[in-house]
This record gives sequence, structure tokens and C-alpha cells, in this order.
Amino acid sequence: MKTVVLKFGGTSVGSIDRIKKVAKIILSHKKKGKSIIVASSAMSGITNDLISKSKLISDNFDKAEYDTLLATGEQMACALLAARLRHLGYLSRSWMSWQIPILTDGHYTNSRISKIGKGKLIKYLKSGGIPIITGFQGINNRERISTLGRGGTDASAIMLAKFFKAEECIIYTDVEGVYTTDPRLFSKAKKIKKIYYDEMLEMASLGSKVMQPTSVQDAKLNNIDIKVKSSFVNKKGTLITNQKKIFSNQIITGISSTKNDSKITIIGVKDKPGVAASIFRPLSQNLINVDMVVQNISLNGKETDLTFTIKSDDLKKTKKLIKNNKDISFRKISYDNDVSKVSIIGVGMITTPGITYRMFQALAKKKINIMVISTSEIKISVLISNKHTKKAIATLHKEFKMG
Amino acid sequence: MKTVVLKFGGTSVGSIDRIKKVAKIILSHKKKGKSIIVASSAMSGITNDLISKSKLISDNFDKAEYDTLLATGEQMACALLAARLRHLGYLSRSWMSWQIPILTDGHYTNSRISKIGKGKLIKYLKSGGIPIITGFQGINNRERISTLGRGGTDASAIMLAKFFKAEECIIYTDVEGVYTTDPRLFSKAKKIKKIYYDEMLEMASLGSKVMQPTSVQDAKLNNIDIKVKSSFVNKKGTLITNQKKIFSNQIITGISSTKNDSKITIIGVKDKPGVAASIFRPLSQNLINVDMVVQNISLNGKETDLTFTIKSDDLKKTKKLIKNNKDISFRKISYDNDVSKVSIIGVGMITTPGITYRMFQALAKKKINIMVISTSEIKISVLISNKHTKKAIATLHKEFKMG
Repeated sequence: MKTVVLKFGGTSVGSIDRIKKVAKIILSHKKKGKSIIVASSAMSGITNDLISKSKLISDNFDKAEYDTLLATGEQMACALLAARLRHLGYLSRSWMSWQIPILTDGHYTNSRISKIGKGKLIKYLKSGGIPIITGFQGINNRERISTLGRGGTDASAIMLAKFFKAEECIIYTDVEGVYTTDPRLFSKAKKIKKIYYDEMLEMASLGSKVMQPTSVQDAKLNNIDIKVKSSFVNKKGTLITNQKKIFSNQIITGISSTKNDSKITIIGVKDKPGVAASIFRPLSQNLINVDMVVQNISLNGKETDLTFTIKSDDLKKTKKLIKNNKDISFRKISYDNDVSKVSIIGVGMITTPGITYRMFQALAKKKINIMVISTSEIKISVLISNKHTKKAIATLHKEFKMG
Repeated sequence: MKTVVLKFGGTSVGSIDRIKKVAKIILSHKKKGKSIIVASSAMSGITNDLISKSKLISDNFDKAEYDTLLATGEQMACALLAARLRHLGYLSRSWMSWQIPILTDGHYTNSRISKIGKGKLIKYLKSGGIPIITGFQGINNRERISTLGRGGTDASAIMLAKFFKAEECIIYTDVEGVYTTDPRLFSKAKKIKKIYYDEMLEMASLGSKVMQPTSVQDAKLNNIDIKVKSSFVNKKGTLITNQKKIFSNQIITGISSTKNDSKITIIGVKDKPGVAASIFRPLSQNLINVDMVVQNISLNGKETDLTFTIKSDDLKKTKKLIKNNKDISFRKISYDNDVSKVSIIGVGMITTPGITYRMFQALAKKKINIMVISTSEIKISVLISNKHTKKAIATLHKEFKMG
């Protein structure tokens, strides 16, 4: 029998009425004669309430206990959902990670699933049961609950799909799918029907909230088709899949933009081998993520300017680290915390020349100044002033005929 | 090293501030150089919230899922409490029943602990750790969570004390101990310093809310000393122990009273062998608990009257069952749902003659009419009108010098 994994996020099970609705969605799949595996998040609000409680107990709350605390949220949602399915006359039960077991490695609050025991669940599926599995968590080799970090239930669903060789994994969420760009920034944004893993990875890394990059990566590695759908309205969602399944003339699939980026320029850095490494080492040690980097050509062979972007939250710390860095000398630091990175993403650009030119030309026509550029095989990013973000998105959406 | 089991009820861990206070209580014991095992209930309010949610999901909520749902409450409280102890610099962690394991048998929502795995906890105790164990629950032979019913964390604590041969088990609660009678009904009620298991069993069976009878019975069977204390004020509580440890001239230890009892009299029952069984069989089959029973002497050898008491909640159902009972014939049923059973309890009455007389005499002097009497070795109960309950308690308290 073909197996389908369904994942429901916190807003999808955010109230008793929502849980009743989700039970109906599950049964609509069950009635198609498939084996159904469900992974559920905690009811939205519950996790935040538990986090608030933890903060009142300690400003340095033990991480193992934190995971044990948070894991109650999914257990609660799964028991309610399974009981609802039983109320409707179906065989269903909650499965916690220690019962299956779902094994993890890595640190508390940020583990990864390493293995899923299949025996008990296969037996249960064969008996026609619908297992409702606590997402976001597993047990580690010390038999303690360890959670998977943000977006952890996506990871649970993808790994369940992998271990049970599911034909598809449907991520039910509060949006209708993946959009060409953020609809809040551009009202004509279109829902994407199909998107490649790599494109989705870039979208996710760039801040699209639909899925966490690690889960997309896991799906790609295991060649699992993901459907992103709304649990609120019954509409076709977005299929995330491999390149073979997509036939399209679309060159650019999505446009993403960031906010809360800051640009730092270090002026008059002594130009010697290893200077960039000397600058970035302390930032890396302090877990500050450096994104776009441009090193100007040294005009006099002695000094150069170095520009890079970071999250604005890290700006204060970064400036301090650079000023206190005894391994480098420079004349001045300037910064701009009013910048945005706008990126176009599409595997089509690999086979289509001139995309970079078209992007720059389109922005130039609208008098949008480009500060920094960075490119990868399937992505071109430009740093522009925050005030131009919306205009840039609209311009590029039109330029690459994404409407 | 000597081991002490500490149990904290829902109101004792009912808020973050309460959990912080409980952490201090635990450390006050730890600092005496003892091995400490803690069993905690869910924060008060949490369990009720979960029950409300379950009712909205189904009026016939699956019992296994119900147990899984409710069990999150203790997990949450234990994680918070363990994290607080770690915050204060002590080695502590939460232990869930599947981690230990605590094994149960019996039905969901009403299981009993059959076995507790000792290996892991002994190792942990030897390392100096303070285990915070989820009360009220265990796992059954299907590896599913099963809860212990009302007062379940008491049962957890007593069984932990049994398996780890604890020198004492302290039940921290929101009252200061066991009282001679309900202080809400008689303001001069006194806290009892020491009480025998059997007396406590009678008190508990008769509605004293301090402990569930099954837990007292388990403590008696395993000869475990129980201290009942308040977690709100630091005062000496009540010791529940075996007879050898108590030296007292007190004849009567406690007075209890019930409300919501009903008295039923079946008048003109045909007096033949087995008639009482014929009357009570359908009641028993419908889980209606018959308490005091009096069968009048048959005057004419043909007919008799039968009087018994039940919970008022069962009155309607009981009347219907008797009327529909084809195995008996009678003239009339009368009932009174305005009655109260007042009992005096004390092992002292075994060796002291005349207690029954003194009780009846004292009540008669106050013109309190006795409707039904029942006695056991250490208890005398009388059924009286509800309106006399307070007066009867005050009278008996004085008569037996319990002040």
C-alpha cells in the first residue's frame, strides 16, 4: 500500500476546531486507500507559554529539561488528534518518539533524527491504524527527549517519509504554498506550482518561512516529493521536487528579499595575505554570520576596502569585535543598517545567458542603486537600499514574466 | 544513605513561585545528607484545562489517549522543578515513567503500579542527583502511558518509597495535616500528631481529602511511615504509621461526616431467603455503592422493611432499578436525601468498652435522632439528619476529649 506522510504545523492544530478540521483532512487521505502517517506540531500558543514559564524559572534553563518541557506540547496535540479520529470511528493512536522509537543525535534543542524504528509502526499501519506522531522531537542515546529546533516537525515528517518510503510528504500549513515572492511586499505574487529542491533551498535560506532549509535538504537527498498546502482552504499547493519532474520555460522561479541586514565597510585595511581571514575569524567565533562580501581591488597595493553584510542584530557586537581586533589595522569603519538583499532564484538561469545583465538593467532603469552583488549557480543577489525593496521586487517580477 | 520520598501535589506546584518554593523545600531535605526522590503532580489548573479540551474533542474520549493527554501535566511540572534545582546549582533531572520504568497494570485512567525499575535511579541517586519523577502515571505492558486515577501521585510516592526502601514518605499538600474532623464543619478541630494506618484508612474512605484509601493501604502493607505536611507553611504535620509507634490514651482519633447521602426504605418486602441479595444485585451491577444497611425484624414472618444508604447522585437510578426489579415484591419505597453519616474512628475503642453507649448517649442528650447504625472494629457510624451534622461533630469532639 502506498504511504503518505502528513505534517500539521502549530496554527493548523491551533484550536479544538482546527484539530477537528485536521481530522477531516486526514480522513480525506485515508479514504483514498492509502497508509497515512501523521506528524503534528504543538497547538500554536502552547509552546510559547511553555517558553515563558521556562524563562520565569531560570535565565539559564537546563537544555535537556527545556526539551522535556517543550515536548509536552506535541504529546498533547497528538493525543487530542488521535482521540478525535477514534471519535469519528477510525483506528488511530498517538505515538511518542520513545514508543517508536525516533532516535536523534546532536545537542539538546538542536538535534537531528538519526534513525526511526520501523517494526511497530509498520505493524500498526498494516492493521489499518493511523499513527499520530509527535513532531519536533526524538530521544537521544541517553534515552532523553531531544528536540529538533525551529521547524522541527518538518524534519520529523521528511524523515518519516524517508524511513517509510512514502510516495509523498504533504506539509499542511497556514499559507497556500510557496509564492514567487512575499505577497505582503508584492500583491501580485503568484503561487508556484512546482519548484526544484535547490530553488526551494535558496528561497528557504533567504527567509521564506514556509520550510526550514535543513528539511528541504533532507527531502532532496532522499528524493522525497513535498507538497506544501494550506490546512485552512482546500486548494492546490506547491510541489517541491527534483528537476526531472518539472518542464517549464520559467527562467526565474522566485524573488526573495531580506530585511534587518546591515552593511559594514572597513576602509583603509592594510592589504596583506590573510587579512580577510583575520577580520572574519573573531566574527565566526562569536557565531556572527557574514553574508555578502566584497573586497575592493587595492589601488595602491597597500590598502583596500572590505564590505560585507550581517544581520542588524549583530551590528553592535561586530563593530566592537573589529575595533578590538589586534590582528588588523584600518582607517575607518562605516555602516548602513538600512539595506536589503533582493535575490532572484531559478535553475533556468543556468542555461539562459544574460540574466545578470537583465536584472541590473531593469533595476538601473528604475534608478535603484546596487551596492553589493553576489551570485551562485541558481541565484543572483543584490544589496540595495531598504526603501527600494518593494519597487525592486515589482520590477523583477515583471522583467522575468512571473505574473 | 537514607532515602526520603517527597510528594508534591498540584497546589504545591501550582505556580512558578510555588515551584521555586518547592525547590527550596527539596533542598532543605537534601542538605540533611539524605537521598531524595521527588514525585510531582501537575500544576493545579493544568489538568483541568486538559480535561476541558478532551471534552470538546469527544464525549467519549479514548481512555488511552486521555492518559497520554493528562500525563503531559506532570512532565511539564517535573521539567520546571528539575530545571529550578539545576538553576540553584544542584544535580537534578526529570524522570518520566518510561525512562525508569514505572510499570502498571489495570485499566487506563485507573491503573496500579506493579513494578518500578530500580537500576537507573539507584545509579542516579548514588551520583548525588535528585530525581524528579512524574507522579500519577506509569507505562503498561503495551508500552503506553496509563494513569493511576484520583490521588495518583500519592500512589506513586508510596510505591517509590516501597521499592527504594525509603525511611519515610512525606506528602506535601495544601493542608497542614490530618485533622480530628473537618475544620470547615468544626472550628475547634485539632491537627492529629500521629494516626494509625487503619484509622487513616477509615478517615480516607469516609471522605477526608488528604489521601486516597488505596495509597494508605499500600503504605500499611509495606509499613511505610507517611508524613502529611503543608508546603505553604513550615509546621509539623501528621504522621501516619503503624500501631507500635503510637503511645496514646486517645480513644477516638477522628470524626468524619459525609454529605450527599440518601436513605432509602423499602416497606413491606416479602420476607423470604435471598430477598436482600435480589434487591442489591441490580444495584451492584450498575456500580451503585450501597453503604449502611438495616433489615428490620419481620414481625408477622411475612413482610419486612429494608433500609440502606447510597450516594444521592445514584438516587434516581436506584429507585428505577428497584421499581423494575421483577424478583421482589414490596408495598412502598420512601426516601430521604437530607441525611448525613457521622463516624467516630479510633483503634482505642477495641480495648475500651462502652464507646457505642457514650456516643448514643451524647447525641441523645442533644436531641439528635439516630436513623441507622453501623459499626466496625475501629469505627462507629450513625445516620442522622443533615441539619444536625455540625452539632453532632461538636458534641462528639467534646465527649471524647479531642480538643
